[in-house]
Amino acid sequence: MRSLNDLQQHIEQWLTENKLQRHPISLYEPIHYLLALGGKRIRPLLVAVGCEMFANDQLALARPIALAVEYFHNFSLMHDDIMDNAHQRRGKATVHTRYNLNTAILSGDAMLVHSYRFLETLPSQLLLQVLPIFTQTAIEVCEGQQWDMQFEQQNNVSTEQYIDMITGKTAVLLAAALQMGALAGGASFADSQHLYEFGKQIGIAFQLQDDILDTFGDAERFGKKIGGDIIQNKKTFLLLQALQVAEESKRQELEQWLQNHQQPNEKIVAVTQIYRQLNVLEAAEAALQQHHAQAFEHLDQIKLPDSNKANLLAVVQQLEQRSH
Amino acid sequence: MRSLNDLQQHIEQWLTENKLQRHPISLYEPIHYLLALGGKRIRPLLVAVGCEMFANDQLALARPIALAVEYFHNFSLMHDDIMDNAHQRRGKATVHTRYNLNTAILSGDAMLVHSYRFLETLPSQLLLQVLPIFTQTAIEVCEGQQWDMQFEQQNNVSTEQYIDMITGKTAVLLAAALQMGALAGGASFADSQHLYEFGKQIGIAFQLQDDILDTFGDAERFGKKIGGDIIQNKKTFLLLQALQVAEESKRQELEQWLQNHQQPNEKIVAVTQIYRQLNVLEAAEAALQQHHAQAFEHLDQIKLPDSNKANLLAVVQQLEQRSH
Repeated sequence: MRSLNDLQQHIEQWLTENKLQRHPISLYEPIHYLLALGGKRIRPLLVAVGCEMFANDQLALARPIALAVEYFHNFSLMHDDIMDNAHQRRGKATVHTRYNLNTAILSGDAMLVHSYRFLETLPSQLLLQVLPIFTQTAIEVCEGQQWDMQFEQQNNVSTEQYIDMITGKTAVLLAAALQMGALAGGASFADSQHLYEFGKQIGIAFQLQDDILDTFGDAERFGKKIGGDIIQNKKTFLLLQALQVAEESKRQELEQWLQNHQQPNEKIVAVTQIYRQLNVLEAAEAALQQHHAQAFEHLDQIKLPDSNKANLLAVVQQLEQRSH
Repeated sequence: MRSLNDLQQHIEQWLTENKLQRHPISLYEPIHYLLALGGKRIRPLLVAVGCEMFANDQLALARPIALAVEYFHNFSLMHDDIMDNAHQRRGKATVHTRYNLNTAILSGDAMLVHSYRFLETLPSQLLLQVLPIFTQTAIEVCEGQQWDMQFEQQNNVSTEQYIDMITGKTAVLLAAALQMGALAGGASFADSQHLYEFGKQIGIAFQLQDDILDTFGDAERFGKKIGGDIIQNKKTFLLLQALQVAEESKRQELEQWLQNHQQPNEKIVAVTQIYRQLNVLEAAEAALQQHHAQAFEHLDQIKLPDSNKANLLAVVQQLEQRSH
């Protein structure tokens, strides 16, 4: 089995070797620009890791899937940045900011279509297995993004609805990356489904962890300012849980702070205190642990030596440590 | 062979029966809205006609392809309307106008992905044949749209470049619709390629005809105001041909009218007169005839009784008459 480092190098090489050499330049340059901003390449890495878990000589089959998944992910970033009105990504200008709106729409569309083109280079049998997984995932990602935008306008979002939203918006693509990689490695469909469920539950757990750390993290180790979600009134698990369990007077106190846009520091302190009074951190950690445990129940169902699962566990650990 | 009318009814029925019943409503409602605006459904009709040319009992196989093509076309309309800043389509508000920008981006994305989902219901062998055609076409449509936007900002666009642009933006989807339909009907790959070329050349001819009629058409029969392209300085075949063949003084005269935004009626008269002096209409009609002739050379290569081709010829005639 290749080391994680080795797999990461393969992925960068695949992206370089498969750089789209097509015209018009004005359509493709923004694609190269966004891909070159880097990032952790976590999704293609999961494809490679899923593949290597079942076979150590099928990495060539993982390549088109890894490229498809990374192109799809970057398509969604390009369009999400428009919708979120985000001007920076990884310290650089977003595509619609650096180029313009129309370019970001159309280059994103082209990236999405090219992700299918990568898949179409697979041998027929494998293509027929992964294609419906890829498309179903793509649909759920779009739906998750729409729920996210809708929830920001909506009162009374439950924590269950929130979990469903982050499942679509984040978790299913991690899940599908693992499953499609496993299929490239020759896994049985049942094993590939267990890996899908592992990826999905881990993805949910990661998002919950992000929510927790943004409020309760150690600023230095978290790597970004604490309390950003509170200042922005972001509908995180914490806020939704608080609104769900608070009795009337506490709820009103919280709602008043939500309407306060003048005192960011006081707001962080006050809302965090309300969260503590309502045991919101405990509820979030319980949910996180539950999804984490579910993930590992599925991984246990895959009857392979622990050494085959070592890379996957290392990726998960790497992701968990990133933000602690 | 079913009548065109019968096929058109099938297509409306397919669209109704396959209406996406998914959530969130806010993502899918704009899709239903745009599809319900109607239109000629020319692309799914070409799928059905291409299929029936080769078999009269395979229409069930044409259905997912017809739906994919119509969804893809409407995805491109939804996004193009944003890029063109168009507020009306078929007398109704465009999606980004009626809803908002973010909805038009994301519902468009979802339509594109759902077009693949329709294809994935095909039997494997047929899916493997049509999938690369569909994806290649989708890429060329994106590229054609980008060339179109780029040309509007660019000097010295040649008529050859213009033909390439309209090939991507308009012709290849008509071509692919026919080819994929033919494959559903069991055509040989060679025959399906002839039908692709037929559709492509006819598509180019239609666009040239649109350009001609916007300036030289009979206002009453054309159904819209004459001279719109001239007022907007639209880079049509006529304008590009004129700029290409004019000697210096005539070119300057034309360029001056292009900068005139105050006198629309005088501008139409003057530019039309310059076109006449430069024999631009004759050049456009020659190009149209050339593509029309090429189309029929390919159709002649398909060795089938004329009766099998009757529906296709009727659709072409219907399209040609629409605007005379």
